[in-house]
Amino acid sequence: MNPAQPAKLEFWFECGSPYSYLSAMRIETLAARHGVTVAWKPFLLGPIFRSFGWDSSPFVLQKEKGAYAMRDLARECMKYGVPWQPPTTFPRRALLPMRVAMLGADEPWIDEYTRRMMQLNFAVDRDIDTPDAVTEVLAALNLPAAQIIEAAVSDANKQRLREQTETAQRRGVFGAPMFFAGDDMFWGNDRLEDALREAASATTKRWRDG
Amino acid sequence: MNPAQPAKLEFWFECGSPYSYLSAMRIETLAARHGVTVAWKPFLLGPIFRSFGWDSSPFVLQKEKGAYAMRDLARECMKYGVPWQPPTTFPRRALLPMRVAMLGADEPWIDEYTRRMMQLNFAVDRDIDTPDAVTEVLAALNLPAAQIIEAAVSDANKQRLREQTETAQRRGVFGAPMFFAGDDMFWGNDRLEDALREAASATTKRWRDG
Repeated sequence: MNPAQPAKLEFWFECGSPYSYLSAMRIETLAARHGVTVAWKPFLLGPIFRSFGWDSSPFVLQKEKGAYAMRDLARECMKYGVPWQPPTTFPRRALLPMRVAMLGADEPWIDEYTRRMMQLNFAVDRDIDTPDAVTEVLAALNLPAAQIIEAAVSDANKQRLREQTETAQRRGVFGAPMFFAGDDMFWGNDRLEDALREAASATTKRWRDG
Repeated sequence: MNPAQPAKLEFWFECGSPYSYLSAMRIETLAARHGVTVAWKPFLLGPIFRSFGWDSSPFVLQKEKGAYAMRDLARECMKYGVPWQPPTTFPRRALLPMRVAMLGADEPWIDEYTRRMMQLNFAVDRDIDTPDAVTEVLAALNLPAAQIIEAAVSDANKQRLREQTETAQRRGVFGAPMFFAGDDMFWGNDRLEDALREAASATTKRWRDG
């Protein structure tokens, strides 16, 4: 493999998205197996859904699909050995958790932080859009919670998250999780393995041709 | 296995639905491997979508998702070895093909008929809602096309298809393909294998407990 161009997969996620949760719990183990590095890309689903004229999640607006999704999520979590407790509030706001994720996107703690935030939401059924919840998770990782939260709610970091969401939109992201192997887009936890295979093979091809 | 209760999976499909096509091409081979019998259940997506206030497919109404779906379908067909040519008309009306499918739902030719109708749509890029297209497919199966089409457009058969669509709606069907193992609903070609496993194991459980 070319060390100058390691195989990379972008993982676009939202802490309020249950199918993002399934992928967050699985992606690092699978990526390691494929020799792929994961770039964690936090963004907000709310503005994307509003751009379609929706004022909530499609799982709320379309109640048949929402009822099905809860059944499907229980089965999928069982299949992948991921803990699941149906959230009593859905969708859960996750603005503060996502601002912290934006701040930490390139830090070594991003994956463990995101998994723990999502587990509060989907395995413990806790509200997560509070300083208490975020502090609890950061402290469990031995991180300076107060300092990180202060930086996360700075105007500059809020703006970064808005811009990242606009980038998602510009690239055609219409839901979460979304994966990019180069410019090739894959939607949903069901496509995680395919996306990793594409990321791994695209790099091999570049190395062979370069 | 209890011969009085053979393992059964219901396959609810629409000839205009490209993900139904993927499943139609795969289901009989996979079902045989699982010892499961397939009940082919034609229904119309149009009335279901209209009940959500939509006047077309979500792949048309939400253009980002539609563009993605065409890319995803090309990849999925490649993955499963199913021929694919992006349809120049989408969605294609399939009222006559679906009326014939309703008439033949319990006939031995339902699976081959459906696969061939869908291949005209998604592998050959032909309009399918015409007597010519339907006649071509029925004739290729050595079936009396004129007689079948006449029965398919009878008031009684039209009514059966309307009622089958209402049944789908009552059971929570919001898209296609949809699979039922007993009352357990599975959505999309991605869940075909899970649905078959559930159908096979549910029967085993009934046999063990009975």
